[in-house]
Amino acid sequence: MQTDLEIAKQASLKPLSEVADQLGLTPDDYDYYGSPYVAKLRLDVLDRLQGRPAAKYIDISAMTPTPLGEGKSTTTVGLGQAMKHINKRALVTLRQPSMGPTFGIKGGAAGGGYAQVVPMDVFNLHLTGDIHAVAAANNLLAAMIDNKLMRGNPLNIDPDTITWRRVVDMNDRVLRQIVIGLGGKENGIPRETGFDIAVASEVMAILALSTSLQDLRERLGRIVIGYTHDREPVTADQIGAAGAMTVLMQEALRPTLMQTLENTPVLVHAGPFANIAHGNSSILADMIGSRCADYLITESGFGADIGAEKFFNIKCRYSGLKPDAAVLVVTIRALKLHSGNYRVRPGRPIPPEMLEENLADVEAGAVNMVRHIQTMRKHGVTPVVAINRFEADTDAEIALVKRIAEENGAYGAVEARHFAEGGVGAVELAEMVVAACDEESEFRFLYDLDQPLTTKIETIAREVYGAADVSYEPLAESQLKRYERSGFGHLPICMAKTHLSLSHDPSLKGAPSGFTLPIREVRASVGAGFIYPIVGSMSTMPGLAAHPAAEQIDIDENGEIVGLF
Amino acid sequence: MQTDLEIAKQASLKPLSEVADQLGLTPDDYDYYGSPYVAKLRLDVLDRLQGRPAAKYIDISAMTPTPLGEGKSTTTVGLGQAMKHINKRALVTLRQPSMGPTFGIKGGAAGGGYAQVVPMDVFNLHLTGDIHAVAAANNLLAAMIDNKLMRGNPLNIDPDTITWRRVVDMNDRVLRQIVIGLGGKENGIPRETGFDIAVASEVMAILALSTSLQDLRERLGRIVIGYTHDREPVTADQIGAAGAMTVLMQEALRPTLMQTLENTPVLVHAGPFANIAHGNSSILADMIGSRCADYLITESGFGADIGAEKFFNIKCRYSGLKPDAAVLVVTIRALKLHSGNYRVRPGRPIPPEMLEENLADVEAGAVNMVRHIQTMRKHGVTPVVAINRFEADTDAEIALVKRIAEENGAYGAVEARHFAEGGVGAVELAEMVVAACDEESEFRFLYDLDQPLTTKIETIAREVYGAADVSYEPLAESQLKRYERSGFGHLPICMAKTHLSLSHDPSLKGAPSGFTLPIREVRASVGAGFIYPIVGSMSTMPGLAAHPAAEQIDIDENGEIVGLF
Repeated sequence: MQTDLEIAKQASLKPLSEVADQLGLTPDDYDYYGSPYVAKLRLDVLDRLQGRPAAKYIDISAMTPTPLGEGKSTTTVGLGQAMKHINKRALVTLRQPSMGPTFGIKGGAAGGGYAQVVPMDVFNLHLTGDIHAVAAANNLLAAMIDNKLMRGNPLNIDPDTITWRRVVDMNDRVLRQIVIGLGGKENGIPRETGFDIAVASEVMAILALSTSLQDLRERLGRIVIGYTHDREPVTADQIGAAGAMTVLMQEALRPTLMQTLENTPVLVHAGPFANIAHGNSSILADMIGSRCADYLITESGFGADIGAEKFFNIKCRYSGLKPDAAVLVVTIRALKLHSGNYRVRPGRPIPPEMLEENLADVEAGAVNMVRHIQTMRKHGVTPVVAINRFEADTDAEIALVKRIAEENGAYGAVEARHFAEGGVGAVELAEMVVAACDEESEFRFLYDLDQPLTTKIETIAREVYGAADVSYEPLAESQLKRYERSGFGHLPICMAKTHLSLSHDPSLKGAPSGFTLPIREVRASVGAGFIYPIVGSMSTMPGLAAHPAAEQIDIDENGEIVGLF
Repeated sequence: MQTDLEIAKQASLKPLSEVADQLGLTPDDYDYYGSPYVAKLRLDVLDRLQGRPAAKYIDISAMTPTPLGEGKSTTTVGLGQAMKHINKRALVTLRQPSMGPTFGIKGGAAGGGYAQVVPMDVFNLHLTGDIHAVAAANNLLAAMIDNKLMRGNPLNIDPDTITWRRVVDMNDRVLRQIVIGLGGKENGIPRETGFDIAVASEVMAILALSTSLQDLRERLGRIVIGYTHDREPVTADQIGAAGAMTVLMQEALRPTLMQTLENTPVLVHAGPFANIAHGNSSILADMIGSRCADYLITESGFGADIGAEKFFNIKCRYSGLKPDAAVLVVTIRALKLHSGNYRVRPGRPIPPEMLEENLADVEAGAVNMVRHIQTMRKHGVTPVVAINRFEADTDAEIALVKRIAEENGAYGAVEARHFAEGGVGAVELAEMVVAACDEESEFRFLYDLDQPLTTKIETIAREVYGAADVSYEPLAESQLKRYERSGFGHLPICMAKTHLSLSHDPSLKGAPSGFTLPIREVRASVGAGFIYPIVGSMSTMPGLAAHPAAEQIDIDENGEIVGLF
């Protein structure tokens, strides 16, 4: 079996101009970026494309995954490749992966096997520098906040309320909690704070949700960094940073054009976290992409209870784009896990007993798949189940999943073998998705923005997670009141919840019900435009493993990268 | 009077392919980088160009400047432009400016007036992301060091000896001194450390001094991050980080091609500090540039006692390239300042009495210029004095400077008006430089590497600064001994000294003599390949002003940048 890097290195890349040509884009519409296989689109292309019809819009999501992931990115890329085999003009839009984890414990995020974005080393490293720009904008605001404190604090900021942290694109656990400003007056005012990984910055969420340069400017200006001693919100505009942050982000606002192993087009743009942020690639890439293809395929982070729900109720609400169909990626191993009879741990191999045929466990775990199918139907979006086939899966197991999916609201279910076979392995999936897009449906939001924050939270908890009730810690209650009072009550909700269960408890598998969802605290990304209740603890700065992946990464005597993934 | 940004915006840029054509480079030799006016060279171009004759090599330096700077970058760019007017094929190589200060107190560093590198906003912002790559490589090593400490410290590192700090491309004073690793065991081992601005990283010095990808790899591996409890040096190779750092730096190792306002070629590459590092643009850009033009013009940071001395004894030693001539930029205001009769403060206007003709003060201050002329002669390099003319300067003052320069070892002296007039204003300078390059001369180093570290330090102090003696604090003495013992005694010296005086004391103007140069401590950049004695205190992390430049920077309703410089 070849590694992803070996497969990627054998790829026969096409000149990007040929890829752009598939989208009806001309060389004036983009600039190359350090390689003949990477380009950034110019944003004025949107004006030129305005008259074109909108693409069918397909979101790739998944059932509640095992800690190993179920191949959502791979399916997204594979489906994009497969569309070409059935002569459909399709475009894939993807998040840019964070570079830090590449050197930590996990590999790249360019898909895998024979469904990858290439060149995969470029994709997984600096790419076009967007994450660095996010970090620079984030950290400029941080430096200007501390400068204000040192310069007599004219805005009357209560230092204890400052929630704006610094960021770096690195797994660096010692920066989670730090004391700054030591060493005397010339070094500013000492206080406790910390660093997050760059993609956890609200600036990244803003990049993903902005619809234009002016919209970016306004969202950056609305960022709330903390409160005054009188409990009034303090914004990035008041700090005087938002204009310069916009200038730092100007190039990052341009989506990046790449290609799959089969030379079909991919737009890579923005990579916000899927818990404290909405976990979807950019609105701008989708706005442009929607006018460049007949089928626009994008991916949402984590399971459908998280990524897809946020895709529908946050991303589509801000973009105005309406999804036609959604793909729910399932695996036999994840279905078995949701029977509750197994335990899968990150970094460990799958338990051997999970590799044996077990129809009863597949059927028991399928309740999880069904709940996600229902979530998509509740949003008026047609769900297609893609069974990402692994070697150990049996035909009987696959047939069983198909039957359950079809009996429970899926438009259809089909196995997909793009990992091993490339686009040709996902042709049936592509055909089913095309057919599903033609089904009569009407996209709708799960909640209205003018409802109280608690109502919106409870709607998601009940309708999507299956909770019986929601409880609020006193801190969360007071924060919700403060946000309503500060005029943030109209914002949509971005739940920060574990992706390993439909509930707040990662050990609850299947489709739990009757539980009370506990909200520990509630934070606000006012610039990005959402309120995020915290359910459980969310790490926003990963650490390095005992033996970080970086130790294996090097160049060989020919200057070729080795050990990457 | 137009601002630099206004002039830059009116520039008529040529397609970069035409600029590259002047250098004999073909489209296969470079990749565009986000704009039709920015490209990165491919390093294999060196092999192809091997047979071409080497360019005449000219270093631009300056007398001891006022805190406002005397127009060295502007002269470098202006001379590059002027060469075209006399039909000489010239190339300018420049450092990339740090982005952080753009938002702090100082403006851009793209030259000025009618001698600029364009597009100047791109030049002063992210450019091709090299500084971000430096920061990522630097911070990966830092994270891996703290990870080692947390994972049982298998290398037996003494945490108190760790000198490797984190970096960010931002003026952020509160990060100068911090405590990391707070909040419990999962967050690592608490210790005191800090952040420097990214360009102060040894990784930046390494980028500037590397002659190939393999050389970069080796230098990164040799970085000493601290010592064991047994006082043995610990390297980046032992941490296991150097391979991954190289992979992060691979694109940054490619010089960036841009153009001047008059469409002449510029290579921008690397920007190390001129005190704790050697303050010169990259060796690789000069190695390539030397085979692409007849005249290669580069710039060294600060005055000739610092930048040029390091250019000769560090950069040229590692590159093997031999300079033919050097330009010493002087101004009437700096000459007057060195009479000792004035005081100029950063951020304040020039005192009005300095704008009046005063031949006596010019003559008194000229001792400073003469000392620098002698420094160049000691290295066997022919010095040309460029009098960067300001409006208030009188013809009598200019004539006086010419006479003193010519009587004291300069090949010649000439006024230059490129700031106001562009290349045409520096035609006489260009002609004089061309003639100087033809003068018989033999480049030589000031010291041999096999001398003891103290001998090398004392040679620079006496021969270049005019010191009578050198004194060492006990800390410095023990460090020097340790470095000799660790096998670093063969490295060249990179003095970290104020640029505002030939001595260690910024208030000593003119050409002081008889003083004792006090060495407070001595540090080692073993990867970059130099020992740097610290004379006085060097800030490696600037702060923001009370009203940072960032507050004025924004986009207008057309998406155009405003307020940048």
